[in-house]
Amino acid sequence: MARRGEENEVWQHLEVLAGISDDTLGLTRTFLSPAHARAKRQVALWMVAAGMQVFEDGSGNLIGRLSAPDPDAPVIACGSHIDTVRNAGRFDGALGIVLGVAAAAHLARLQLPMRAHLEVVAFSDEEGVRFGSTYLGSKTYVGTLRETDLAVLDDDGLSLRAAIDAHRTEFPSPPPRATLEGYVEVHIEQGPVLEHMGLAVGVATAIAGQTRARVIVDGRSGHAGTTPMDLRQDALAGAAACVVLVEHMARSLPGLVGTVGDLRVRDGAGNVIAGHVEFSVDIRHVENHVRDRFCRNLFAAIERELSARQLGCQVLFPMVQPAVQGSLRLTNLLARAVEQCQEGPCPRLISGAGHDVAAIAAGAETALLFVRCRAGLSHHPDEYAAPEDVAMALSVLIDFLEDLVLQ
Amino acid sequence: MARRGEENEVWQHLEVLAGISDDTLGLTRTFLSPAHARAKRQVALWMVAAGMQVFEDGSGNLIGRLSAPDPDAPVIACGSHIDTVRNAGRFDGALGIVLGVAAAAHLARLQLPMRAHLEVVAFSDEEGVRFGSTYLGSKTYVGTLRETDLAVLDDDGLSLRAAIDAHRTEFPSPPPRATLEGYVEVHIEQGPVLEHMGLAVGVATAIAGQTRARVIVDGRSGHAGTTPMDLRQDALAGAAACVVLVEHMARSLPGLVGTVGDLRVRDGAGNVIAGHVEFSVDIRHVENHVRDRFCRNLFAAIERELSARQLGCQVLFPMVQPAVQGSLRLTNLLARAVEQCQEGPCPRLISGAGHDVAAIAAGAETALLFVRCRAGLSHHPDEYAAPEDVAMALSVLIDFLEDLVLQ
Repeated sequence: MARRGEENEVWQHLEVLAGISDDTLGLTRTFLSPAHARAKRQVALWMVAAGMQVFEDGSGNLIGRLSAPDPDAPVIACGSHIDTVRNAGRFDGALGIVLGVAAAAHLARLQLPMRAHLEVVAFSDEEGVRFGSTYLGSKTYVGTLRETDLAVLDDDGLSLRAAIDAHRTEFPSPPPRATLEGYVEVHIEQGPVLEHMGLAVGVATAIAGQTRARVIVDGRSGHAGTTPMDLRQDALAGAAACVVLVEHMARSLPGLVGTVGDLRVRDGAGNVIAGHVEFSVDIRHVENHVRDRFCRNLFAAIERELSARQLGCQVLFPMVQPAVQGSLRLTNLLARAVEQCQEGPCPRLISGAGHDVAAIAAGAETALLFVRCRAGLSHHPDEYAAPEDVAMALSVLIDFLEDLVLQ
Repeated sequence: MARRGEENEVWQHLEVLAGISDDTLGLTRTFLSPAHARAKRQVALWMVAAGMQVFEDGSGNLIGRLSAPDPDAPVIACGSHIDTVRNAGRFDGALGIVLGVAAAAHLARLQLPMRAHLEVVAFSDEEGVRFGSTYLGSKTYVGTLRETDLAVLDDDGLSLRAAIDAHRTEFPSPPPRATLEGYVEVHIEQGPVLEHMGLAVGVATAIAGQTRARVIVDGRSGHAGTTPMDLRQDALAGAAACVVLVEHMARSLPGLVGTVGDLRVRDGAGNVIAGHVEFSVDIRHVENHVRDRFCRNLFAAIERELSARQLGCQVLFPMVQPAVQGSLRLTNLLARAVEQCQEGPCPRLISGAGHDVAAIAAGAETALLFVRCRAGLSHHPDEYAAPEDVAMALSVLIDFLEDLVLQ
């Protein structure tokens, strides 16, 4: 159970992180940006104050460790990502880190024997704003990052590999780890279910799989006034037809979401037919075979549409993330902690959003706690979770970690 | 008739201007950019070498003047615009300036009595890349620029008025003018008709009217994974549907062209539903009433589409340019010069592209000479006119100006 002072500190830490931004108008803190580094230094201070040693790995994950007496003890980890989308809300990612540090501080103050090391991790890159590839931090942490993951390029043509190589870590490298036994993440729901049920927290038993694609459309630029409609190879008109197609096909399959969130016209100008357009596609569903079949149909339809317009089409897949089931043992343990802190049975949800826990599941047992957020709104400055819901999540996390970490 | 040395110099000047760019990869020379200023300094040197006095007006038009003995003599002007689109071709605009300077040099060398002043003008802003509003230069030159034309803003929120006020002219102000009698512009056709006819040059008797709009779409940004399809207010999906609509409706009306050349997603990211999108619309037809009726239908359809999606919609019209007929007298004079230099009757075309001549027509007689360009391609690095066609245009321009300027 959390104490009032701990709850207040969590809220205050969220305020502080919300102010660490690369953008003075909104909250934007992308991978390897100046604000990203400042936020990590701030979290490191809190980790030290909580009694943890602080480490940083090669891909910029910040790791606070509360050590058990036995160096070969397994690790129980919790945390979330410290990067944000552009013009983000203040809870997405930050909440899981701040709560992890507060729970570790609570456990440290208990001064009880520990059977496992507790690590609180601020993952460096989950949103993938700069490179369009996600889970960089959590994949590195769990040891599943492949060299091919690092070949992706940012808008300036710099590879993720080169960006990481150029990055200077500010803290010592983490010590070797015997076993990563479990990982728990606390995150706002980013959807409307808990609010609809009138409950502060619930567990997510699975995470929808995601396919993220980047479609590159090549046409022929030309003068908007003198090129007859039937002689055009208009890359923007073709891309727009594909955006409409993504929306139309996604609407036809219940439970699936399909989004084009980014579209860029190279050298766009009102009086020039667009010659080159790139756009993103994001497809999610909890059943892998449903998502796979949908994507085959969708990208075949996109290729037909663009080919019929005599437009070049290249489809890249920077991320294909299968659906992930949480560990039964940890999910049940987390649900029990929820039932101890919140009246009634623990709600069990499916997450439409990806989280670092999805990457960690490849190498450890995992569980995911959702916190109610207003109107299901996220990736938006109005994103909001109530202080009492955040306090409830802290109590659940403390109870859960006491069970797992203490002897 | 032009001499071989004059033709070679024209080609060399085109080469020099093609190298004056704000972008090292392609040719980009937008209004008030550093390359824009360098290009004007270069043209000023050529003007001086041709025997002209050089002036610059408040909106940055560069004016070379070959004076008649009588200060109250009328002015005959020729020229084109010195700004370019992004990643432009080297003939659009530059050709008319370079040929004007060469023709003036030819006339000066004749040392014959002049009945009119000859002015060669490099108009400062025709493409309107930065402010989305065009004919700034030619409107200023002919005295039709209104204060409201200057209220438009660039991407940084700076007004055209403020940009012009901050601009420091490098040359003296032009002397007062008695009468602007006529203006002739030489321009690449930017379309396929002359190439199809196998002819180097022809006259354009009219210029299609243009309506340029900017559509601002407001939705609600949100998480791409957790917002069900039927609860979205996706500004990009709505904008894409409108792009498809523009193309579909434009295709259904022969002789009309409709283009969305620019579309921008604010804070675009693959995993975020777009909350704010802006796009351009460009509609052209040679009949004003046809274009007006089409635009009423189109923008009503766009508003219906966006309203049905619960998206906010704002439509601005930075430019509405009626169709323009050339002067019968000057067009016939120009056609006669074409027939003297090129075998067979002079082809008479309609211009789908806007040119400074359209703005000048509000205050003077005008004529427009088109030069064949390869594949009708313009606003593209591959834009090309053959040296022999450019030489033909120079001879036509010299003949035409000799008739008009000399006693």
